[in-house]
Amino acid sequence: MRMYDMIRKKKSGKALTGEEIRFMTEGYAKGEIPDYQMSALMMAICFQGMTKEETLSLTLAMRDSGEMLDLSGIQGIKVDKHSTGGVGDKTSLVLAPMVAALGVPVAKMSGRGLGHTGGTIDKLECFPGFSTELTKEQFCQNVNRMKMAIMGQTAQLAPADKKLYALRDVTATVDQLSLIASSIMSKKLAAGADAIVLDVKTGSGAFMKEEKDAFALAKEMVEIGKSAGKKMAAVITDMDQPLGNAVGNSLEVKEAILALNGLGPQDLMEVVYALGTEMALAAEKADTREAAEELLKQTIQEKTALDKLAEFVEAQGGDKRYVYQPELLPAAAIQMQVINTEAGYVGGIQAEEIGLASLILGGGRMTKDSPIDLSVGVLLHKKRGQAVQPGEALATVYANDMERAKEAYGKVVQAFSIQPQAPKQASMVKGILR
Amino acid sequence: MRMYDMIRKKKSGKALTGEEIRFMTEGYAKGEIPDYQMSALMMAICFQGMTKEETLSLTLAMRDSGEMLDLSGIQGIKVDKHSTGGVGDKTSLVLAPMVAALGVPVAKMSGRGLGHTGGTIDKLECFPGFSTELTKEQFCQNVNRMKMAIMGQTAQLAPADKKLYALRDVTATVDQLSLIASSIMSKKLAAGADAIVLDVKTGSGAFMKEEKDAFALAKEMVEIGKSAGKKMAAVITDMDQPLGNAVGNSLEVKEAILALNGLGPQDLMEVVYALGTEMALAAEKADTREAAEELLKQTIQEKTALDKLAEFVEAQGGDKRYVYQPELLPAAAIQMQVINTEAGYVGGIQAEEIGLASLILGGGRMTKDSPIDLSVGVLLHKKRGQAVQPGEALATVYANDMERAKEAYGKVVQAFSIQPQAPKQASMVKGILR
Repeated sequence: MRMYDMIRKKKSGKALTGEEIRFMTEGYAKGEIPDYQMSALMMAICFQGMTKEETLSLTLAMRDSGEMLDLSGIQGIKVDKHSTGGVGDKTSLVLAPMVAALGVPVAKMSGRGLGHTGGTIDKLECFPGFSTELTKEQFCQNVNRMKMAIMGQTAQLAPADKKLYALRDVTATVDQLSLIASSIMSKKLAAGADAIVLDVKTGSGAFMKEEKDAFALAKEMVEIGKSAGKKMAAVITDMDQPLGNAVGNSLEVKEAILALNGLGPQDLMEVVYALGTEMALAAEKADTREAAEELLKQTIQEKTALDKLAEFVEAQGGDKRYVYQPELLPAAAIQMQVINTEAGYVGGIQAEEIGLASLILGGGRMTKDSPIDLSVGVLLHKKRGQAVQPGEALATVYANDMERAKEAYGKVVQAFSIQPQAPKQASMVKGILR
Repeated sequence: MRMYDMIRKKKSGKALTGEEIRFMTEGYAKGEIPDYQMSALMMAICFQGMTKEETLSLTLAMRDSGEMLDLSGIQGIKVDKHSTGGVGDKTSLVLAPMVAALGVPVAKMSGRGLGHTGGTIDKLECFPGFSTELTKEQFCQNVNRMKMAIMGQTAQLAPADKKLYALRDVTATVDQLSLIASSIMSKKLAAGADAIVLDVKTGSGAFMKEEKDAFALAKEMVEIGKSAGKKMAAVITDMDQPLGNAVGNSLEVKEAILALNGLGPQDLMEVVYALGTEMALAAEKADTREAAEELLKQTIQEKTALDKLAEFVEAQGGDKRYVYQPELLPAAAIQMQVINTEAGYVGGIQAEEIGLASLILGGGRMTKDSPIDLSVGVLLHKKRGQAVQPGEALATVYANDMERAKEAYGKVVQAFSIQPQAPKQASMVKGILR
């Protein structure tokens, strides 16, 4: 087998065999196939696509390129949740304690944020002392004891995907559905859960701008997961405006804590319940959607989810007082209100612009190793569809530097579009695939 | 400017600016742009193509990446000739002395053969002592004195093309018309002639299998050359069967000498006269095609071209006795006849198979540094359209090793197709573009 022949084959529109894909993936991970051949193949795939079989082969080959996390020591049906990423996406912070409170084992591996979307681990580090550096034994013990633990992603997990993604990132070959699907799923399959619930975002702040692309991606991932023997569900959700009102690490943690106190914004909660229902069903904690949702609501009403968050934070070294007194969380020194000037309705809020505002303020990473300021961000006071009067605040910019505050302010102003008529309201959940 | 943005732009089907192409070509030549980005861009170009402007920009940027040969010391209109390569293509060996005998300065840079097509320099090395290692001064002096000199291609000529071609060769991105055109033309433009006559081959033994692709390539090259201020002509010629009867270095040299004695095979001479006419017209040695052809014929009848070859061989260190006594040229020990078994007509001879037979015999290079056996090859006794009887010899295999001879024999048998009716005879010259 020669990589050259595979490039030719794919370029001419033919499908690669499972053997060829495994040869290429293993060879690339070992450094036997050079970057320049792999990038040529990736570009050919961007034009010619991959069949279902090819995508599955690539996913499994990348999964097998490193360690598989062994979760067999954890009792019950392990459910993992993955989001394709968006602005203000603190869903995991709300959802994980809720389903764990139902007795569903949440053994989650999370990433850090890069660019304009934040990562769950960065957010959790708002709790002083919190760490995701658990041994595999601690991780499994914690899940067994209290149904919830979060680990950082290890380099040993699907290293072929890691190497390939880095190459795609610098050769403009990221935006191909089957490549995205296999990249996400290779890591999820290696992470060892029994069931995987995917939150596939669509809209201006998401990677998939078009709804049809989001559905196509969801379908590919669900098919891969099922073929690999996992229970699968994908919820396609709106990311045309930021999710909830808070964007920025400690602002989002505060919002998540409010949500666990029953005060969550409606759009965030709609997504939380949709995903939570799928997780509860997959874990066989309920037979119907209605029953699952009812159980989830009780975890809020009875504060069992809030207590679960506190228990989890403490178990991973964090200060649980912050869960009950969120005013202790780091706050930025400068608060600058963005004032509305015309009467009308909020027609939309460009999620990507708000994410960039938070990045400018220091709340996100420009590169992999940049430090981040946990206290900064943007708090939205108005969301799509709300009526606004001149003089009302649309949002507040939280900053620690006046220059940056001004720049972020400009982005926030740009992000809002005010229109004379109320926009058509759409559901947060665009569809569910199983 | 960022290479990443250029890859994205080309991938989405947009044209790169002249500035961008120069940035990328210079950056790649200097090693500032990595192979993996360049190969991704090349693959995107294979799918999206390049505009006329982009192709010209790339050609000029590659031309300018190294030295330009200064031929200003040579008197008269310097005419260069280039063939896209084929099996049995000894055209230069016949043509160069003919036009030089007319007083046209032939200042030619030639390459060595690779794969199943041979190089002019390899063939000339059949004359003991012959060398193409001339200084630029010697080269110009020789052309001024006797109108003909041939130099090896230097690494300083269009080094960006050299590097890019090597990358394309291992990433299956060679077969794109605009990339082929810019690669050929960058070297031709750097080689400094005033006029360039191209022999664009088409058919089973050529790079361009389809006639329409050969015309398209010819058109692109002619346009590039004209835009760069050169007189241009392209002759599209048949390479569906080998050119002439001889394939293999010394066999081809013998055939060229026969041709200069008035005994050249008809197909070879048709190509020689078509190209020679264009060269004579470009050099303003004749006003009409008829006059040019008449002058060229005289160089054969009066043996001035044969004497020119002898003079040239001697001037570059070779033994000129071999020109007048070609039986001195190296001959292989084993001669194996390929006998025909059925009555009919030769419908075709797969040029590529004959080229491979010669390669197997040791007459070509498997890799850049392989040594070659000058004495081996295949001599065809029958060509397309000729009637054949059982028991007649179709060809003779010239070998120095019995195992190889047998393998080559099989290839030659495969190459011939015998059919009941005579095939339609087609002209060797498919068209001329200027």
